[in-house]
Amino acid sequence: MIITVKTGQKTELIDITSKIQEAVSASCTGKGMENGLCMIYVPHTTAGVTINENADPDVKSDILMILNKIVPWEAGYRHMEGNSPAHVKATLVGASELVAFENKKLLLGTWQGIFFCEFDGPRTRKVHVKMMPGFRHEI
Amino acid sequence: MIITVKTGQKTELIDITSKIQEAVSASCTGKGMENGLCMIYVPHTTAGVTINENADPDVKSDILMILNKIVPWEAGYRHMEGNSPAHVKATLVGASELVAFENKKLLLGTWQGIFFCEFDGPRTRKVHVKMMPGFRHEI
Amino acid sequence: MIITVKTGQKTELIDITSKIQEAVSASCTGKGMENGLCMIYVPHTTAGVTINENADPDVKSDILMILNKIVPWEAGYRHMEGNSPAHVKATLVGASELVAFENKKLLLGTWQGIFFCEFDGPRTRKVHVKMMPGFRHEI
Repeated sequence: MIITVKTGQKTELIDITSKIQEAVSASCTGKGMENGLCMIYVPHTTAGVTINENADPDVKSDILMILNKIVPWEAGYRHMEGNSPAHVKATLVGASELVAFENKKLLLGTWQGIFFCEFDGPRTRKVHVKMMPGFRHEI
Repeated sequence: MIITVKTGQKTELIDITSKIQEAVSASCTGKGMENGLCMIYVPHTTAGVTINENADPDVKSDILMILNKIVPWEAGYRHMEGNSPAHVKATLVGASELVAFENKKLLLGTWQGIFFCEFDGPRTRKVHVKMMPGFRHEI
Repeated sequence: MIITVKTGQKTELIDITSKIQEAVSASCTGKGMENGLCMIYVPHTTAGVTINENADPDVKSDILMILNKIVPWEAGYRHMEGNSPAHVKATLVGASELVAFENKKLLLGTWQGIFFCEFDGPRTRKVHVKMMPGFRHEI
């Protein structure tokens, strides 16, 4: 299943937890898939996905603030498109996350949300959501 | 399966390889699960999990030393709980690792161990361990 | 399946996409594995794997340039082997990636390639490639 994320800023963390939960519910319904693992995969090279706190929005801005310090906008980059910082951030944050689900519900920790990480926006982005079965007796 | 990790420091890497191996052995026994993938998942937003060298403990302290430089304790953070550095480190290190197992044994490299990464301790933490079947002919 | 990667530099990103695709094709053929997930796993502690742009080679050098800034060669490291920067980079980049495949083809984004990340070369390295089945109706 593919979901679409519209980003509005150059760098931005967007909570996609409810969209991923909807994808899990929709994928599972009527197919006997109650338990398993869900892969959230970003098919872009200037964006990523992370799991972090979804209670206080200041956490998102603090993460972006430090990423922008670690990977400066100007640093003698060779890549001529001007978006090298976005590529580096994509590698630091990563292209995918895995979250288990039980009875079609994502097994996130109390404060955890799933965030699409835009590093070269604004753009219209895609996120792939894939399910894998768990062992019947275990997951 | 859920395992518990008690951390004793503000920031700390704790080798949980033997605990994960025990979880794999316990989950697999009597269930016909010999081969597959094991997901190690941290349901917290101020901790993470990484795979690195388990021979020389100085590697752990060097990793923490650099993470503490990259993500300073004071940097004008907005999040008022005072643990923003822990949230940023969690995103840099990541919430999960995947390790294959064969005949119920984790397929780690010679020097690899699995480390719980405490970034806002000391606390009592949880780690989820989930198994997935591999293709019969392949894994 | 295990593939071998020979690295030629101290730090280097090497595009292994075609090798991973070959491993998927070879593993799937004749076994009824058409769709699923492929785990690319690095069993070393001074190397990693990342997904990023495979069009302009300058992206690779920009990623390495920033990693070498973030994790300096000299920083009062305790680990006496002298390769602590490589261990830290391995934790920042990560030991594994997951990519879905359909009809035996890796489902990468348009600009995505899979890169072996050498941080303490040159060496002869191994990469494990493992397949997992997806839900029949979903992946």
